[in-house]
Formats: sequence, structure tokens, C-alpha cells
Amino acid sequence: MRCTPRVCEPLTAEESTRLAGMFKALAEPVRLKLFSVIASHAGGEACVCDLAPFVDVSQPTISHHLKVLRESGLVSSQRRGTWVHYRVEPEVTGDLLAALARTVDVNEEVAS
Amino acid sequence: MRCTPRVCEPLTAEESTRLAGMFKALAEPVRLKLFSVIASHAGGEACVCDLAPFVDVSQPTISHHLKVLRESGLVSSQRRGTWVHYRVEPEVTGDLLAALARTVDVNEEVAS
Repeated sequence: MRCTPRVCEPLTAEESTRLAGMFKALAEPVRLKLFSVIASHAGGEACVCDLAPFVDVSQPTISHHLKVLRESGLVSSQRRGTWVHYRVEPEVTGDLLAALARTVDVNEEVAS
Repeated sequence: MRCTPRVCEPLTAEESTRLAGMFKALAEPVRLKLFSVIASHAGGEACVCDLAPFVDVSQPTISHHLKVLRESGLVSSQRRGTWVHYRVEPEVTGDLLAALARTVDVNEEVAS
């Protein structure tokens, strides 16, 4: 039985699994804040030394959160001299954005 | 010490907490798939009877996931006759989208 017509394809099981993993990385307030601080720097890139003033947690906790963000693919890291630099991966965040935007765009088109 | 300049304001602690709660609701593959199936129907609205064919889980599991989505504010529900209808809340998903887009847009501007 179908009550309402579908207007676009939902996510596949594979897309759902991949994107759910990224959402999980962003599903913790301090981690999301750190992600947002990195993204708010020029080039979407921040030195680890830039992050601590923005969050009220210990350095090991910051390191743990950065590891989770890195493992999710949302950010990459690179050591330059003394400091590690973290960079938002625009292609990966773009994918996430496109998946969400698809749902909102479709609804706006139908509503208007 | 600051290594790279900031080009926009990061999320506040309050925004991070609110958005992280929504990301958490989307951080489970079956739940994200159900959200996506609802969103892919006309008007961003689907009858609960439309959802089961898309996921390989029991009806109680579907109900649990829908409850989590509803509690996150991402979807609302309404009973009409026999069936409950679920609707994506465009304002709430729009907020989520705007928060993510802000980070990606800024990076693209800087890159170009």
C-alpha cells in the first residue's frame, strides 16, 4: 500500500551507512564545536594550537575528538614543524551537505 | 598563539549542543534511511505504511527509530484515520543544512 507518491530516490543502504558514520562524528557537542572552529579558519584549516581556547576540555580530550573526526574522513591532518594542522575536507562535507540538501530542496519545491 | 586567521564565527556552545542532538538522530544507518525515505515522498511526508518496504527491520524497530527522529525535532507525526503520517520539518533540517553549508561555503570562497 502506498499513501503518498515518492518524488525522488531515498538514500541507498550503502549511502546511509557511510553518511550515518559522518553524522556520528558530528553528534557530540564538543566535537562538533571543534569541527566548526576548524572550518571557520581561513582555508578550512586550523593549527591544533588554535583550538584549545574554544573548548573547555583537556588536551587529551581534544586529541581524542580530533582522532574521531579524522577517522570519519571529515577532516585530515598534517604535521608542519611543531604543530599538527587540521583541515576540513570540502569534498566529504560537500557530500554530506548534498545528501541533506536533496531532502530539503525536494520539500521546498513541492511546497512552493 | 594563532597560526591561521578565522574567517567566520564558529558555532556557539548552544548551537553545537542543539545541532549535535540532530546529528545523533541521523547517526544510525536504518534511522537515516527512514528519514531519507520520508523526505523522498511528496511534501516530505510519508505514511508509516510506506516505510516498511525500504528497511529490513521489524515494525517495533521502525517505531523506535521514528520516535527518536520525532524527539530530535527533525520529523513530526500526525495520525489520520488508521495511519500515522511522518513529515520532515523543513525549518529544522534547514537549520542543520545552514550550519553545515556555512562551513563548506567559507572554504570554497577561500579556495576560489
